[in-house]
Amino acid sequence: MRVLGVDPGLTRCGLGVVDGGKGRSVACVAVGVARSPQEDELATRLLTVATEVERWMDLHRPQVVAIERVFSQHNVRTVMGTAQVSGVVALAAARRGLPVAFHTPSEVKAAISGSGRADKKQVTTMITKILGLAEAPKPADAADALALGVCHLWRAPMMDRIAQAEARAAEAARTHRAKIKAAQEKAQRAQGPRTGGKTR
Amino acid sequence: MRVLGVDPGLTRCGLGVVDGGKGRSVACVAVGVARSPQEDELATRLLTVATEVERWMDLHRPQVVAIERVFSQHNVRTVMGTAQVSGVVALAAARRGLPVAFHTPSEVKAAISGSGRADKKQVTTMITKILGLAEAPKPADAADALALGVCHLWRAPMMDRIAQAEARAAEAARTHRAKIKAAQEKAQRAQGPRTGGKTR
Repeated sequence: MRVLGVDPGLTRCGLGVVDGGKGRSVACVAVGVARSPQEDELATRLLTVATEVERWMDLHRPQVVAIERVFSQHNVRTVMGTAQVSGVVALAAARRGLPVAFHTPSEVKAAISGSGRADKKQVTTMITKILGLAEAPKPADAADALALGVCHLWRAPMMDRIAQAEARAAEAARTHRAKIKAAQEKAQRAQGPRTGGKTR
Repeated sequence: MRVLGVDPGLTRCGLGVVDGGKGRSVACVAVGVARSPQEDELATRLLTVATEVERWMDLHRPQVVAIERVFSQHNVRTVMGTAQVSGVVALAAARRGLPVAFHTPSEVKAAISGSGRADKKQVTTMITKILGLAEAPKPADAADALALGVCHLWRAPMMDRIAQAEARAAEAARTHRAKIKAAQEKAQRAQGPRTGGKTR
């Protein structure tokens, strides 16, 4: 499976394409950033970033897009821009019929380094090692995008298993409820109508 | 001038098209909402809303798009969706070469009702009156979108005047600095080189 990982941002939007093989084997296909000049108007900046992200989608043909989930605990202005970029990236994916998954920074860190509290440097070191890269991807946004892609490849099977288990549990609960209802109705029929048919 | 006002939202995105005439005269062209089902995935919802907003842009051909500026002081989850919608709307405008303006809720309220603290009901009442509508636009998001459009029409000339005044002030400052520099250089030349040409 091929994943496009996106670390959304207006000034620097990290992009990383990762292929997943058997088990936990992963390979880096491409890594980079989409940039937009800070002096441009917001709408123009969104267009610049969206155009580059769409070029990556059409060039590398990922089967799924993994985007970092944005939280609003940081700088308000930055977060709004980041959320807007994540929106235009998700829209571009939906237009191409690609599924979109969101992963939180903690989920990415935990998947890559085993700890949800790893710092940016540790994530870069780990992703460089995991993908067997000759040198660390720069800037950090590019490394984060690769980490997102790997996180998705490693989490997706687990999330699928959980979803399947939940579906089975729901199905079992439905069957169980149906059986109880059938038993209750059978008991009622055996007992006969309590008030007869004249209540209307 | 024709404005498309957009009150961004995933569940209900308010849309209002307003024409501005001479002075403060304004007329309602169209009003409504773009909706997306809450049970759909985020990317699908963004696509649903974006498609409808783009249909409005192509149908009503506004010359400018006015979007409510999102703040993150409310519910985090809602705000992220709202920011993402505002991003896809701004992108759609940029793709069509339309300028995009952002106005805060307080600016809209102040422009429409004279008070930045007016409540939703007051805004609806005022916008119904201003546009001479037979009945109040519903839901509130639709009324807010019209209010945004009128706010833009009424603020835009003022904002243009401010921008022009600032440009003139900047130009005057540049001229002033250039004159000072020229005077200093002239004085220096008159005085002659203080240390001669042998300092190197």
